[in-house]
Amino acid sequence: MISKAKVKYIKSLQVKKYRLQEQCFVAEGAKSVSELLQSDFEVIWLAASPEFTDRNHKWLNKTRAEVVIAAETELSSLGNFQTNDAAVAIARMKPDKRPQLIPEEWALLLDDIRDPGNLGAIIRAADWYGVKNIIASAETVDLYNPKVVSATMGSFCRVNVHYTNLTRFIEEASHPVYGAFLEGEDIHRVSFSKGGLIVIGNEANGISAPVEKLIQHRITIPRYGKAESLNAAMATGIILDVVRQSKK
Amino acid sequence: MISKAKVKYIKSLQVKKYRLQEQCFVAEGAKSVSELLQSDFEVIWLAASPEFTDRNHKWLNKTRAEVVIAAETELSSLGNFQTNDAAVAIARMKPDKRPQLIPEEWALLLDDIRDPGNLGAIIRAADWYGVKNIIASAETVDLYNPKVVSATMGSFCRVNVHYTNLTRFIEEASHPVYGAFLEGEDIHRVSFSKGGLIVIGNEANGISAPVEKLIQHRITIPRYGKAESLNAAMATGIILDVVRQSKK
Repeated sequence: MISKAKVKYIKSLQVKKYRLQEQCFVAEGAKSVSELLQSDFEVIWLAASPEFTDRNHKWLNKTRAEVVIAAETELSSLGNFQTNDAAVAIARMKPDKRPQLIPEEWALLLDDIRDPGNLGAIIRAADWYGVKNIIASAETVDLYNPKVVSATMGSFCRVNVHYTNLTRFIEEASHPVYGAFLEGEDIHRVSFSKGGLIVIGNEANGISAPVEKLIQHRITIPRYGKAESLNAAMATGIILDVVRQSKK
Repeated sequence: MISKAKVKYIKSLQVKKYRLQEQCFVAEGAKSVSELLQSDFEVIWLAASPEFTDRNHKWLNKTRAEVVIAAETELSSLGNFQTNDAAVAIARMKPDKRPQLIPEEWALLLDDIRDPGNLGAIIRAADWYGVKNIIASAETVDLYNPKVVSATMGSFCRVNVHYTNLTRFIEEASHPVYGAFLEGEDIHRVSFSKGGLIVIGNEANGISAPVEKLIQHRITIPRYGKAESLNAAMATGIILDVVRQSKK
């Protein structure tokens, strides 16, 4: 049984202001919570179904978190997503860490991605393609937004997201800078270097003018039909797939 | 000013049961409504901001729909999405049409895609890559779900989605059948034919056993990192990009 005070606290962490104040966030669902337990995040509190605790006893034995057994109905009413009925956890946010990129590394730069589902899918794709660092503009949706965490399917544990001023970051980096545009060189014809920064723009407005000025290679995904654009997260995945192929 | 009865009617069309009963659906936002006006869908009623009507007067002159001018605040409170404050329309659903695929055509088969955002992004990607037909299992989320329509960014006007039994459809088709799996031949090494069916499985469970039996080519997106899987819509986009390249 989960106390009313805890339910209220968990709901409050859906709001960025309270997350910042408490320095805590919520992860929901079997996949996210299981990955969280296996990561270096500090898990503070956890409610889980008997089935989840059974499957994850190895990790639960190691955690210092307070663990509460709860019914699936109780768990699903607690979270944002009805299908996340296996587990809910409260964990401590990590301090924002500026990455030290090595020369042969690829990193994503997100210029104001607003949709939580998109940021989550981008983090998941970064994790799939072995991209360890994402640099996000201050206006990009918060990594610890519960919808973002959920959409990463656990990948938020393995990808570092650093929020900063993108123009300054680019100016201080020595990596080549690629930017996704509707007009540019066909990604399948670009001769990609061995590492670099890939800028993905806002869902509605694309890459902002100050960032655009710093882009050295305008790249584009070739179109065969009539859609005006692709979803920003999908475009990111397609570009990463091509970049990884071009290495060979 | 939009009448209370109309507001209630629009809200009711968020529910599949009422959409089927009324044979009507709702499109929200400048992009979707503008595309709708330019399509062969029958638009019945439309509320739009003065700015939207100004920009789309060419199409508004041709429509038989009842057109109401409304304030942006009124429009955003009406829809599902706060950012869709330019226009809302009610249109008539089209009868489900079984496609007659030509031999050199690619079509997507969706085996139980449940997330509206995913179906919307898949329809948008199909439109980008010139795929005209999607065949969806009966359990796949409804094309006319407002979140699906919104996520297509207008592409629902150009891509035909046919709901049917997938195993029967595959058995009756003469196209080669490719299926996306976590284990299969690397998509970058597959020798794709000039046309075919690409099966995309459910977000959590992948391709169902009866459909799996009919798949001739198991294909996979190569992984470089640690994520367990990719988002289903993103995987669809990556596969379509590779298929279109391999044609050359």
